[in-house]
Amino acid sequence: MSYFSKRYSLPGTAPGDISAAAHPVAPPRLHVIEYGAEFFFEKADASLSDCAGFVAAPTNTWIHVQGNSSPDMLREMGAAFGIHPLALEDILHTGQRPKLENYGGPLFTVLSWPSWNGDRIATQQVSIFFNDGVVISFHAGESDPFEPLRERLRDKSSRLRAHASDLLFHALIDLVIDQGFPILDELAEWIEQMEEKLLARPQPEQLHDLHQLRRDVVLLRRMLWPQRDIINSLLRDVHPLIQPETRMYLRDCYDHSVQIIEILESFRETSASLMELYLSSASNRLNEIIRVLTIIATIFIPPTFIVGVYGMNFSDAHSPWAMPELHWYFGYPLVWLVIIGMVGGMLYYFRRKNWF
Amino acid sequence: MSYFSKRYSLPGTAPGDISAAAHPVAPPRLHVIEYGAEFFFEKADASLSDCAGFVAAPTNTWIHVQGNSSPDMLREMGAAFGIHPLALEDILHTGQRPKLENYGGPLFTVLSWPSWNGDRIATQQVSIFFNDGVVISFHAGESDPFEPLRERLRDKSSRLRAHASDLLFHALIDLVIDQGFPILDELAEWIEQMEEKLLARPQPEQLHDLHQLRRDVVLLRRMLWPQRDIINSLLRDVHPLIQPETRMYLRDCYDHSVQIIEILESFRETSASLMELYLSSASNRLNEIIRVLTIIATIFIPPTFIVGVYGMNFSDAHSPWAMPELHWYFGYPLVWLVIIGMVGGMLYYFRRKNWF
Amino acid sequence: MSYFSKRYSLPGTAPGDISAAAHPVAPPRLHVIEYGAEFFFEKADASLSDCAGFVAAPTNTWIHVQGNSSPDMLREMGAAFGIHPLALEDILHTGQRPKLENYGGPLFTVLSWPSWNGDRIATQQVSIFFNDGVVISFHAGESDPFEPLRERLRDKSSRLRAHASDLLFHALIDLVIDQGFPILDELAEWIEQMEEKLLARPQPEQLHDLHQLRRDVVLLRRMLWPQRDIINSLLRDVHPLIQPETRMYLRDCYDHSVQIIEILESFRETSASLMELYLSSASNRLNEIIRVLTIIATIFIPPTFIVGVYGMNFSDAHSPWAMPELHWYFGYPLVWLVIIGMVGGMLYYFRRKNWF
Amino acid sequence: MSYFSKRYSLPGTAPGDISAAAHPVAPPRLHVIEYGAEFFFEKADASLSDCAGFVAAPTNTWIHVQGNSSPDMLREMGAAFGIHPLALEDILHTGQRPKLENYGGPLFTVLSWPSWNGDRIATQQVSIFFNDGVVISFHAGESDPFEPLRERLRDKSSRLRAHASDLLFHALIDLVIDQGFPILDELAEWIEQMEEKLLARPQPEQLHDLHQLRRDVVLLRRMLWPQRDIINSLLRDVHPLIQPETRMYLRDCYDHSVQIIEILESFRETSASLMELYLSSASNRLNEIIRVLTIIATIFIPPTFIVGVYGMNFSDAHSPWAMPELHWYFGYPLVWLVIIGMVGGMLYYFRRKNWF
Amino acid sequence: MSYFSKRYSLPGTAPGDISAAAHPVAPPRLHVIEYGAEFFFEKADASLSDCAGFVAAPTNTWIHVQGNSSPDMLREMGAAFGIHPLALEDILHTGQRPKLENYGGPLFTVLSWPSWNGDRIATQQVSIFFNDGVVISFHAGESDPFEPLRERLRDKSSRLRAHASDLLFHALIDLVIDQGFPILDELAEWIEQMEEKLLARPQPEQLHDLHQLRRDVVLLRRMLWPQRDIINSLLRDVHPLIQPETRMYLRDCYDHSVQIIEILESFRETSASLMELYLSSASNRLNEIIRVLTIIATIFIPPTFIVGVYGMNFSDAHSPWAMPELHWYFGYPLVWLVIIGMVGGMLYYFRRKNWF
Repeated sequence: MSYFSKRYSLPGTAPGDISAAAHPVAPPRLHVIEYGAEFFFEKADASLSDCAGFVAAPTNTWIHVQGNSSPDMLREMGAAFGIHPLALEDILHTGQRPKLENYGGPLFTVLSWPSWNGDRIATQQVSIFFNDGVVISFHAGESDPFEPLRERLRDKSSRLRAHASDLLFHALIDLVIDQGFPILDELAEWIEQMEEKLLARPQPEQLHDLHQLRRDVVLLRRMLWPQRDIINSLLRDVHPLIQPETRMYLRDCYDHSVQIIEILESFRETSASLMELYLSSASNRLNEIIRVLTIIATIFIPPTFIVGVYGMNFSDAHSPWAMPELHWYFGYPLVWLVIIGMVGGMLYYFRRKNWF
Repeated sequence: MSYFSKRYSLPGTAPGDISAAAHPVAPPRLHVIEYGAEFFFEKADASLSDCAGFVAAPTNTWIHVQGNSSPDMLREMGAAFGIHPLALEDILHTGQRPKLENYGGPLFTVLSWPSWNGDRIATQQVSIFFNDGVVISFHAGESDPFEPLRERLRDKSSRLRAHASDLLFHALIDLVIDQGFPILDELAEWIEQMEEKLLARPQPEQLHDLHQLRRDVVLLRRMLWPQRDIINSLLRDVHPLIQPETRMYLRDCYDHSVQIIEILESFRETSASLMELYLSSASNRLNEIIRVLTIIATIFIPPTFIVGVYGMNFSDAHSPWAMPELHWYFGYPLVWLVIIGMVGGMLYYFRRKNWF
Repeated sequence: MSYFSKRYSLPGTAPGDISAAAHPVAPPRLHVIEYGAEFFFEKADASLSDCAGFVAAPTNTWIHVQGNSSPDMLREMGAAFGIHPLALEDILHTGQRPKLENYGGPLFTVLSWPSWNGDRIATQQVSIFFNDGVVISFHAGESDPFEPLRERLRDKSSRLRAHASDLLFHALIDLVIDQGFPILDELAEWIEQMEEKLLARPQPEQLHDLHQLRRDVVLLRRMLWPQRDIINSLLRDVHPLIQPETRMYLRDCYDHSVQIIEILESFRETSASLMELYLSSASNRLNEIIRVLTIIATIFIPPTFIVGVYGMNFSDAHSPWAMPELHWYFGYPLVWLVIIGMVGGMLYYFRRKNWF
Repeated sequence: MSYFSKRYSLPGTAPGDISAAAHPVAPPRLHVIEYGAEFFFEKADASLSDCAGFVAAPTNTWIHVQGNSSPDMLREMGAAFGIHPLALEDILHTGQRPKLENYGGPLFTVLSWPSWNGDRIATQQVSIFFNDGVVISFHAGESDPFEPLRERLRDKSSRLRAHASDLLFHALIDLVIDQGFPILDELAEWIEQMEEKLLARPQPEQLHDLHQLRRDVVLLRRMLWPQRDIINSLLRDVHPLIQPETRMYLRDCYDHSVQIIEILESFRETSASLMELYLSSASNRLNEIIRVLTIIATIFIPPTFIVGVYGMNFSDAHSPWAMPELHWYFGYPLVWLVIIGMVGGMLYYFRRKNWF
Repeated sequence: MSYFSKRYSLPGTAPGDISAAAHPVAPPRLHVIEYGAEFFFEKADASLSDCAGFVAAPTNTWIHVQGNSSPDMLREMGAAFGIHPLALEDILHTGQRPKLENYGGPLFTVLSWPSWNGDRIATQQVSIFFNDGVVISFHAGESDPFEPLRERLRDKSSRLRAHASDLLFHALIDLVIDQGFPILDELAEWIEQMEEKLLARPQPEQLHDLHQLRRDVVLLRRMLWPQRDIINSLLRDVHPLIQPETRMYLRDCYDHSVQIIEILESFRETSASLMELYLSSASNRLNEIIRVLTIIATIFIPPTFIVGVYGMNFSDAHSPWAMPELHWYFGYPLVWLVIIGMVGGMLYYFRRKNWF
């Protein structure tokens, strides 16, 4: 996740003006489903004109646009389905803050689809346009996240088939939000592994991982936090497109979005705590090394002085005061005694002080 | 407590669909109590059909389900007692955020039952379904926490017996929330013991304990925090099932939940402060060691240089300038004087500077 | 102040059930004052039956219970004066969070009385029951804090005498809250002394004091914070027992409680800042020691090598290349020159780099 | 600024009772201005009885009391101008939290006048009593801050002269609040100078200054924060004394008080960041010293061992294995080669590792 | 960005009095555009009297004042266009907190225009006065930021031309707020580069950059934060000058301002985290150096003692106990064996402990 991933027009461009945007290399793929309680039709890789026909029918239509949209196609869709230019701009300029807009009738929402590749977190934008009987979803990534919903729609006994399209709108939002759980689950496991490693043996490389974790959690939180407000707004405000019985499911969805935010908050606290833990462990380890090394050095330095004394070349030829010890009968063993006494004294003192 | 302990369906599963969940190894045990002011009947290890009969009676029924529920049993209970599928999903997927749901009549609440094994904190989910005259409680753990309530019910003079079932509903919630007090009490004692140890002699192992404590306090707070809102919502909103006189007891319960949160907050601050205290104490201890060792080494290094000088083999055979000191009458004692002067000077300087 | 000082019943006990509580060693002392504009009667060490008689009289009654109450006495008082069982439980289970309860007529409040013994902060619970013409106060500690109020009551010209008992209720609350000022005053002086000591010469023992301070400030804040809400609630809600003119005095009291909280907040920030200051000062001091010691050692190590060179026993008997320097006329002075040059160079370099 | 600078009565004193307060050494000085659109009269060092006469006149009166008030004078003023005893107590007990009181007609406000002596921040209390046609201001410090307002009043064309006294009330508040700007300006300059010094060369003395700064910013914020609420309350609530056109000026004043708080907040963050910067710079500097010193020592220790080897007194008289190197033709130069090789190898390794 | 960049009058100056302000060196340049659906007239470097004529016309007028305004010109403009003196003061005293004022009809807003010179962030004040059919913008910097808007106005098909002047007012605000995106984009890139450098090799100079970053992010946030409230107020309150269809665009603008604040918040967290990362990396690097150096020294100190022993001048002439090892046949090789054994033992121990 990069610190700034929003696409934007140059400041001063008219709002909703998307003409200056670059066309994507690969055109997006359209997938249309037309459904009712008794009716089901599905077409993958549909064309825009295929879609336009369906919308007029009394059954419900779900168009999914997978991949980066081109400005031209968006303008055509805007004209065909009545999508507001500001919404088109938001679809094109991915990296938007999640939001819910009510353009005087149709609802338009931008959500964040989190993913985790075992090492880093990423988010992709999901935009959903919802009007009576029409749901159009856009996902900027490569793989289509909505296949489980299609599976449910194909099943004739599914609750989705019997309901108006607001339940499909809810199901899309629900799917995007619930995607947070497996991501947080994997992230939690990753954190627990790192925690164990940290406590066992801290490594400088972990600093990098910890910083990454913290950064990703902060950025992910920024992208998921507003989703709570979106669902709260759907719950609180009266939208004529949303039927009362759908609200109960939205409440469930709201609970999930709150729980995801709270778990992310605890990850944030945890990542700060793990950083401190790493620093303390690393410093503990260095302290142990330095302590042992310094004790070794300190124990040998005073004896080195002693033996240096008797390496001096003062000679008794000139003075009886010149190192008479060299001529004592037990001079040499005495030196060893002194040395062993010194070392032993130091070891005893260090031991009593619990220094090793 | 693990960072992520929520069970969840795959994203895209229909809300309330619990068919994919695994069946638990051991089936849960049901305990039924049927009571009124004058009537009392109790059956442990009851069957579902036992329960269904009681519900129809005008007396109050309390069914307690101990252990992990199986999806099939939950579905049957849902059909028999009118439990909403979303509630069934929440009962099955333990690790839910505490919440209160009003499914158009019956109330459903999820709470967190904390426990402490002397070393780590854990929480288990308690779910309570409450409809007129029926209370069904679910506890996912092994030991049944509600025995004290049964004891009170068996006593004919108990206030619980004379009241409608909303007082039992309150009593269950009250018991779960008050369980926080003994846990916090033990935790506080544990913190105080650790504090004393830290101040007496910091050990690297304590780092691990402190991190654990901080992590557990953060996670416990996440699980207990929403309970305050649940009771506040019971107090604030008018629920036809809750009688006015029960509110006074709920206010007491609300006070307790607030106090628990505040105590947990102060534990959180304390655990951060203890971490700092540990780091400071550990660094103090190392500093003392390094200071003493460095002083010892520093005191012996200059004399070692001096004695090294007179170990050189310059000989007066070639030059009168070649170490004449070796031939001085008091050369050797003078060297000792110089050495003692150096060491004494250093010791005096270090002492005056208060370095040891 | 300990981390957890609340007394509580076992979870599952009926709310308001105080039968299981232990009886205190010493029975509490009752002090009754019966007063009106023209009337004053006072009895220390009164009995419960003394009190019951007074309550019926049209004059105002103030009963003060000093010391730990016994469950039996509380039950009797509850019956005699109409104190709700939940209030009795709160009086008995000291360590309650401060709160205000309106039991459908009489008001009941729990407050926190802070004290400071020159080293640690403590709080004791003050509970006040207030009904029309009756004020009953309970203080769990040993010394009676309300003597100044009695003094004012004995004075016939006092405003308290002319008013209804709501002014006495206010005066009791005001006294408890204003007690925060002398405590904070002494605490501030203690902090300032510690700050001076820290800046002059940091000592490891101060770490302990700083941790104590931080802990006490956090715990005191937890006990005083809710008092603000209590007074705010007395101000905001209409209580028929509180006369409009008393409100102006309550506003003054509210200001005081807010100021106390704000001062405590700044103490909290200060204690964190002092902890950092201690750590920085301690680390500064060690750094100075280590720097000087390392400089001393570093200055003597290279000369020690040089003199070691000329202590080698290579002899010119075998080779003209074997230490000819030993035979140079100015060999020895040259060695000293080299040594002095090295040391001087190092000193000059260290000095220029501002290392000492 | 000290941590606790509030004056207070002993707990238990009747609210508004100021009889126990000490009389100040020097009596305060009164300055009276009586003004209207066409009328202006000014008297410095006025007596209380001078003032009383003016208040009855239909023109506006501004009485300024400079210096510490005595309890007697305050009681007299209270009686003469209808100042509530609680307000008198607040005027006397300086160090109050800023506040606005509406004693059923007249307004009374306490504000904080910040000052900066180039090194430390201080605040003094300004109290303003405002009734229809009468403004009485009290400033506890030595120098009179309101001279600029008198200058404006003396000018006949000034807007203040044409207006009712609420504009004077606003002008006094505005002056006290705007005083924050020059203080923050000087403080910002001081911070920038310290920042430069810190980055150039950190000194232990700066630690003291940084702590002072942080402490003063925290305490100043505590004293200025409530002023925002005061002006907000003047704006929001309808006070009959405040005319609608004055509100526009109060909005401007509100903006200023918000900006002052925000700037103080950023100073607080900055002071914490500067503390970290100091610690990092100091640690960087020590690290550089220790690194260089340790490299010097490490380079000379192995050669010292080598030359020690050939200083041993093993003699070939007893064994051909006894240091035959001493008799090699190129023994001595070889030792130098080995030493130079060792040192060069270490230097190359350290260099490649970028250690110096 | 400096800590305090607000210009202000001396405290006590009458609000709206700008007579004491200094005149800028260079007079500002005026650019006038008069436009309608069918009409367009533009004049650069216009005079004030040019402007006055346009305002009376029924078409829309946009006057842009580039550069520092002089008090005299502002007073003239105030008289000509009905700008309130308080607004004139805010235009002159740049460094204002962004705000929106409704002077009983015309709207006046102060905004913050951020810029980035590749190294530091700066903000300049943009003030916009908006009355029916007249928009007057002021920008205190040197280069004119509004050229893109003029480009759009010159295009006859632009939505701006067809609308009333409230859309121009919105477009100006939108441009200023959207300017945040390129700034944050560049800042994010700068942060990412610094992050990479930090992880690769921390340098003391980066400390300075990190502090700068943190400071600039804090100050920028202070200047951009209130803009959110401005747009929220435009959205929430009913301003007769703002047409309903303009609100939809303001909502878009509000989203952008929220997103900018959130991104800045995450930069703030990031900069704190980077500071910690720097400190940890720097400490890791020093630790590695010290560890290796200390190991080298520790390995050579004990052998140096051993060779010192046999450099002593005890002679067997006086005692058989005087260093008989010197006469052993394998004495010298034995010493080497002992030394190699010591070093090998230490290396093995250090290796097993994973110290290098």
